[in-house]
Amino acid sequence: MTTATMTRPEKVAMNGVDVPTLIGTVAFVGDNPEAAKFQFRAKGEWISGTHSRGTVNGYFGAGGEQSHSKEFVVEADHPAVLCGADNAPTPVEYLLTGLAACITAGIGNIASARQIELTSVRTSVEGDIDLRGLLGLNDTVRNGFNAIRVKVTVEGSADATKLAAVVQQSVARSAVFDMLSNGTDVTVEVA
Amino acid sequence: MTTATMTRPEKVAMNGVDVPTLIGTVAFVGDNPEAAKFQFRAKGEWISGTHSRGTVNGYFGAGGEQSHSKEFVVEADHPAVLCGADNAPTPVEYLLTGLAACITAGIGNIASARQIELTSVRTSVEGDIDLRGLLGLNDTVRNGFNAIRVKVTVEGSADATKLAAVVQQSVARSAVFDMLSNGTDVTVEVA
Repeated sequence: MTTATMTRPEKVAMNGVDVPTLIGTVAFVGDNPEAAKFQFRAKGEWISGTHSRGTVNGYFGAGGEQSHSKEFVVEADHPAVLCGADNAPTPVEYLLTGLAACITAGIGNIASARQIELTSVRTSVEGDIDLRGLLGLNDTVRNGFNAIRVKVTVEGSADATKLAAVVQQSVARSAVFDMLSNGTDVTVEVA
Repeated sequence: MTTATMTRPEKVAMNGVDVPTLIGTVAFVGDNPEAAKFQFRAKGEWISGTHSRGTVNGYFGAGGEQSHSKEFVVEADHPAVLCGADNAPTPVEYLLTGLAACITAGIGNIASARQIELTSVRTSVEGDIDLRGLLGLNDTVRNGFNAIRVKVTVEGSADATKLAAVVQQSVARSAVFDMLSNGTDVTVEVA
């Protein structure tokens, strides 16, 4: 055993994360910035009323066209109280679930990279919205959520301070948290 | 028949939208601003690796606690090329599908309120992301999408100008477009 391996033991897979491969992937992208350019995509079609069906499959990344393991279907609708048919979650609820999922995935990766075994990660998200904005009843009211609050509870093989630090690092690196906090450039074209 | 009904015929249900009820709901909220206060919610739990399961059901709105027709499950994961198990869409893809769904639902409602019969609404969304941000490899690169582009194709019983105006009005009133364009206040608490 070399000194290097004695002082810095190799990290092992845990929490369902192949940690050596994850570390290798990050190092590869660091050496190959072109591999970091990704484009994610979705297609959607209207079904009836406020009900639509989205599909997700192909994306660009790691230097080429990629596909998911299968085509994923994401339906959305408005609830009955808003004159929808309530066939599926509302579009804004997908932002809440997407935010929770992004932070949770980051916790999975970061805890594993820090060799902390997770036993439980639970999230609770709520968003406040005044519908007078999107209904066009008051121009001083915004269309979207005024505020989104996330609560995260993590249990695992580290003390509360280290577990909280994993959550904080996940939020600091979350793509969805960034976009919902800071916005991004969105263009809509009628084709 | 009165002059009023001759010059302003009553609007009828179409496109799966109960237009008289929709118009009545908007008028009711205009007269009762408290009814416009909604809170949408999601809960999430980590499964393994980057795979999580979100659930959506209860929400507050129209002056009281409400429930969807059933509990909806929203799973997310990272793709294999990013060391995930690719069990479900990525969190960022839920932002793209949510955006498409929000604009599409608005088109359904607005076209119906304008008594335009829709035959097809299709959306295509793409978002560009440089993963060096969320991988922590370059502090000048943001975590989220640099840009999101939406294409909308609408067919129905009106000319192209009127159909495009429906899309524009939907975007102008879209909750998800607002949040992704402008951001919102997001807080994360470790409970």
